[in-house]
Amino acid sequence: MRIAIDAMGGDAGPAVAVHGAAAAVQACPGLEVDLFGPGDQLSNELENLPRHLAAAGSHLSVHHAPGLIRQNQRPSDALRRGGETSMALMLAHVANRNAAAGVSAGNTGALMALARRALGTVADIPRPAICTAIPTRSDGRCYLLDLGANVDVTAGRLVDFARMGEVMARHVDGLAAPRVALLNVGSEGTKGSEAVRQADALLRAMGSLNYIGFIEGDGIFAGSADVVVCDGFVGNAVLKASEGLARMLIERVQLTFESHWSSRLVGMLARPALRRLKNELDPVRYNGASLLGLDGIVIKSHGSADATGFSYAVSRAVQEVRRGLPARLAVELDARCGSTQQEQW
Amino acid sequence: MRIAIDAMGGDAGPAVAVHGAAAAVQACPGLEVDLFGPGDQLSNELENLPRHLAAAGSHLSVHHAPGLIRQNQRPSDALRRGGETSMALMLAHVANRNAAAGVSAGNTGALMALARRALGTVADIPRPAICTAIPTRSDGRCYLLDLGANVDVTAGRLVDFARMGEVMARHVDGLAAPRVALLNVGSEGTKGSEAVRQADALLRAMGSLNYIGFIEGDGIFAGSADVVVCDGFVGNAVLKASEGLARMLIERVQLTFESHWSSRLVGMLARPALRRLKNELDPVRYNGASLLGLDGIVIKSHGSADATGFSYAVSRAVQEVRRGLPARLAVELDARCGSTQQEQW
Repeated sequence: MRIAIDAMGGDAGPAVAVHGAAAAVQACPGLEVDLFGPGDQLSNELENLPRHLAAAGSHLSVHHAPGLIRQNQRPSDALRRGGETSMALMLAHVANRNAAAGVSAGNTGALMALARRALGTVADIPRPAICTAIPTRSDGRCYLLDLGANVDVTAGRLVDFARMGEVMARHVDGLAAPRVALLNVGSEGTKGSEAVRQADALLRAMGSLNYIGFIEGDGIFAGSADVVVCDGFVGNAVLKASEGLARMLIERVQLTFESHWSSRLVGMLARPALRRLKNELDPVRYNGASLLGLDGIVIKSHGSADATGFSYAVSRAVQEVRRGLPARLAVELDARCGSTQQEQW
Repeated sequence: MRIAIDAMGGDAGPAVAVHGAAAAVQACPGLEVDLFGPGDQLSNELENLPRHLAAAGSHLSVHHAPGLIRQNQRPSDALRRGGETSMALMLAHVANRNAAAGVSAGNTGALMALARRALGTVADIPRPAICTAIPTRSDGRCYLLDLGANVDVTAGRLVDFARMGEVMARHVDGLAAPRVALLNVGSEGTKGSEAVRQADALLRAMGSLNYIGFIEGDGIFAGSADVVVCDGFVGNAVLKASEGLARMLIERVQLTFESHWSSRLVGMLARPALRRLKNELDPVRYNGASLLGLDGIVIKSHGSADATGFSYAVSRAVQEVRRGLPARLAVELDARCGSTQQEQW
C-alpha cells in the first residue's frame, strides 16, 4: 500500500511529517510513503532520520513540489494558484491512483477545496464533512461530524452526515449497528433548530439506521452514541472548546498536585500519565480527521500535531484504505437516493 | 434584601433549595428568603434544618404553593396551567416587587416562558438569553451566552447578547472595558455562518464595545475574552459537552492515580481537590445561570445542584440585585436603539 503525504503542512516544518511517516512505516509493514515538498529539504530530513526511525527510510520517497499553501490562504486562492504546491501535487498523486490515500497537516479549507476538485465526491455529496473519533467514557469512542466544513446546513445534509458516519463506524470500526444520534439542545422532539428537527423526522422515517434520536452535548462524552451528527459550526465549537477545556483541566490538575507539598513528587510521577491523557483528549491533534464524502481518502492531521500524532493520521489513512471506505460510501449512499427525498428540505 | 425561591424545582426535592437558601443567608447578613412550595413540606424542612444552618431558619419564610412544574412540561403548557405552582407564584412575588429577585432549579423552558410573562423584558429584547460565567485559565472567567434559550438567531440578536453580556461584565464584575468576542469556526472574517458574519460587521460598526472579533472554541477557556457570544444552540452544545468532558476527565485522572500502586494513597488525598475542580468546571451546576434581558432578576440553578451550588445561585441573585442589573440593561440597551438598526438584519 502506498500513501501520499504533504510534508509541508504542519506548523513545525517537514520534520514532523517525515518522522511521523517513518514511524507509520515501522508500525505497518508493507507501507510505502511518497513525500511531497521541496526536494532538497525532504532529502535532507530523510538523511538525518533519528536512529530509531532510520530503517524506515528506504520506504519513503521524495517527490519534489516547490510551492506551499499558506495557513491563512483562502480556499479560492488555493484553487487558483495551488498548482505546484505540496498539497496539490500530493492530491493529484492520489487522484491519479499512484497512492491509495493522502495525508496533510495543512490549511483545512484549502485541503477541502483542492481535494474536492482533485478527487470529486461520492453519491452526489455536495461537500465532504470533517469527522474524527472523540474519546468517550469507559475507553469508548464516538464519531463526531461535521467539524467545520459545512455551516448553515439543511436537514438533508445532516442526514448525509448521519449516513456517512454510520458507514464509517460500521465498516472501519466493525460495529454491527452503530447508534446514530443528532446533537440538540434538549432531548425532546419540540426543541432545537429547524434543520435539526426536520433531520430528526427524516431519520425516523428512513428506518434503515439505528437512529437513537437527540442527544445533548454531554452525551458525546458519555458514550451514548457511536456517531453524533451536527452542523459544522456546532461541531467545530464543541471540538475546539473541548480541546481548550482539556488543556486547562490538565494544567489545573497538575497545579493542584504540585501546590500540595506531599503530592509534589507524585505530580512529577503523574506528569507522563497526564500528558498521555491530554493527548488522548485532543483527538484531532492525536488521530487526525477524515474528509468524509470524497471519492478518495484524505486525512487531515492537526497543524500542531507531533510526529506521533502525524503517524496516527497516516495509520488512520491505512485503516480506511483497508476497509475500502469510499467504495462503501458510494454504494450505501447511492442506495439512499431512491428511498428518501432529502433535497426537498 | 429579599429573594424569592422556587423550592420545588431541583431533582432531589426541596431539601437542597432550603439548605442552600439557609447557607446563602448565613453568608449574606441581611438577606431574607421567601420559599415557595407545599407549605407542610417546606415547614418540615425548616424545622429539620441541620444544626450548622439552624440559625438561618428565622430568615426563611414559607409561602404555600400547591402545584409543581414538571421537568418535562412544555413551556406552552406551563403558561396555560402553571398558575398555582411554586415557580409561577415565586415569579409573581418578584413581579409584585415583594422580592428583589427569584431563583429556581426547575424546568428551564418553563422558567423562561413564565418569567418573560410575569416580568417582561427590557429595551424591546424579544426573549432573554441564558448566561453563565465559565472558568478560564489563570483563574479567570468569561460570560458565555446564549446557552440555549434562542436557537436560529439573527445577527441583531447576537448583537443584543453582546451588549447584555458586556453590561453584565462591566457592572456586576466591575471590568472597565470587557473584551467581547463572537464565537466562530475560524478567526478570519470570511468564515462562519451568515448571522455571525453579519453580527461581526454590526459590532465593528458600533464602535461602543471593546469588540475583539472572532474567537474559536478553545479561546473560551484560554481566557481570550470576557464575554463570548453565540447562538443558543452552539452555546448549549459547548456548555453541555464541556460538562461531560470535565466529568470524564476527572474520572480518568482519578483512575490513572488509583491504578498505580504508589499513587493510590495520593489518589485518596487528591480526591477532595479533584471534586472541587469538577465543581468549578461545572459552572451552571455550581453558580447558576442568569436569565439576561428580563425586567427583573431570575437565576436558574442547575436541576442537580447540591445545597452549595444552590446557595451560589442565590448569591448570584444577590450580586445582580446590588448592581441593579435590569435597570443598567434598560438604560444601556435603550441607548443602542438610536445608534444602530439591527432589525434590518
